[in-house]
Amino acid sequence: MSLPQWYSVFIEAVDAALDKVLPDGEIEPRQLHAAMRYSVFPGGKRIRPAVVCASRSAVAGPKRSGNSRSDDPAMWPSVAIELIHCYSLIHDDLPCMDNDDFRRGKPSCHKAYGEATALLAGDALLTLAFEALASPSFLDAVGPEPACSCVAALASAAGSRGMIGGQQLDISPWPWLEPGIGEPEALCLMEALKTGKLFQCAAVMGGIVGGACEEELGILSELASDLGLAFQIRDDLEDAVSEGEGAQPGIITAVSVWGVEGAQQHFVTLIDAARTKCRLLGNAGSELMDIIDLVNREW
Amino acid sequence: MSLPQWYSVFIEAVDAALDKVLPDGEIEPRQLHAAMRYSVFPGGKRIRPAVVCASRSAVAGPKRSGNSRSDDPAMWPSVAIELIHCYSLIHDDLPCMDNDDFRRGKPSCHKAYGEATALLAGDALLTLAFEALASPSFLDAVGPEPACSCVAALASAAGSRGMIGGQQLDISPWPWLEPGIGEPEALCLMEALKTGKLFQCAAVMGGIVGGACEEELGILSELASDLGLAFQIRDDLEDAVSEGEGAQPGIITAVSVWGVEGAQQHFVTLIDAARTKCRLLGNAGSELMDIIDLVNREW
Repeated sequence: MSLPQWYSVFIEAVDAALDKVLPDGEIEPRQLHAAMRYSVFPGGKRIRPAVVCASRSAVAGPKRSGNSRSDDPAMWPSVAIELIHCYSLIHDDLPCMDNDDFRRGKPSCHKAYGEATALLAGDALLTLAFEALASPSFLDAVGPEPACSCVAALASAAGSRGMIGGQQLDISPWPWLEPGIGEPEALCLMEALKTGKLFQCAAVMGGIVGGACEEELGILSELASDLGLAFQIRDDLEDAVSEGEGAQPGIITAVSVWGVEGAQQHFVTLIDAARTKCRLLGNAGSELMDIIDLVNREW
Repeated sequence: MSLPQWYSVFIEAVDAALDKVLPDGEIEPRQLHAAMRYSVFPGGKRIRPAVVCASRSAVAGPKRSGNSRSDDPAMWPSVAIELIHCYSLIHDDLPCMDNDDFRRGKPSCHKAYGEATALLAGDALLTLAFEALASPSFLDAVGPEPACSCVAALASAAGSRGMIGGQQLDISPWPWLEPGIGEPEALCLMEALKTGKLFQCAAVMGGIVGGACEEELGILSELASDLGLAFQIRDDLEDAVSEGEGAQPGIITAVSVWGVEGAQQHFVTLIDAARTKCRLLGNAGSELMDIIDLVNREW
């Protein structure tokens, strides 16, 4: 898989920033800190952080002040959103949720450290995300008001009307009790919450750090929402291929609702919509366009 | 039990504020929002929020601007810290942790809503705490810089080097692996993290909102740390009385380490120390003194 040059550099920078924010494994309680690190490293493509930094570039211009990646103030919200993502995976894998024994090719956190420590490691990563957004270095770089806006955006996107709300819908046996909601509508709501909100928040935080105007924030937010949904549909499609197409009763996915071809069509439509919005940002949106292309090609 | 007049009024005000911050049970996902509310209401004595508001009064003077309790900007950090406390109880009761079927005289959250929803409800309350601290009303009242300081203080106190760290030590079988740490030392560390840090944070956030100087923040922080430890020792003493004095192997408590009389002595010493520090705040510290008296008499 080939990543654009900036993206490879970026992954190293965000991994270094995560390493700096996470307490050392030698600090008490060691088990807990080890479990936190185990769940963050080695990471995946860090796509949510990449959306943060690319969104900042799209409105502030890349390297405007000659900063290297690691000095980029967008690194703080990048770290925060990745910590949220990693915590959600730990809790998602727990026996009472998906009961997954493996994650990214190694035993899931509760398999390696036990359920209780995995639960606490998730809680601690979630909490650390907000500590990162209130860190003195971030405040020095952007000022307290944008930092508060990032806290508000992340809490809203990760909470009961965002990602956690989507998880709750995901574990609610279908059909839900609410009258009048059809399968496609329910699926769109669930995936918008479960995946879309965090992507949207990544773009908005990047925009806030870059000093975006209202119009730019609107474009970033819509673009990232499309991208997040596309990403989730791709995930559903890949699951359907690897697990066979048999729909599981009581579970709705893009494939169970639209079929493979229908889901592919939705995917293409969303990628096109994201591209159209990205073009509105001009050349400065090139990193975002790279991410859209990656989701289109690779995932 | 008789509460001072201001405290009874306060409990009503903080309950009303919590009610306002929590999403309505009719908003999707209803199960999740119902589980969140179930775990917050009816509440206990709301002692951590009371410490926030009493600490603000201690440095800003009570009703300085003629505000009623519900207009008190300290209500936001009060709500935030109570949400953190409530989430920690949900996760603590889960089968992989203490496996408690009852909490505050009713079935624990996972007994009432199932484990998965309880896990998510805890995550959502934790996230909502930070949303409260970044809410526009709080920022309007105190400005973005104090709000960021509250986010930083709460995240640090609730995270892996605070409350969650204490929980981790609590589930780690004694003796821990670290060389050279004795039982009393280990107990003090665990209780300082598990309970002390959140009390300390309550006082510090109240001080921040009240515009405390460094010296006042120092007094508040030390006072609340003593109070939190006293509160925890009282809890250990009550558990020992209700469950019999037999120490459980692998679990250290104030009673297992110091015996009943020794724990009582430590309790008295801590209450005295808190009172001495409180007197440094003069008459404005009267609400804090009331709370110290309550912990001494009632809990």
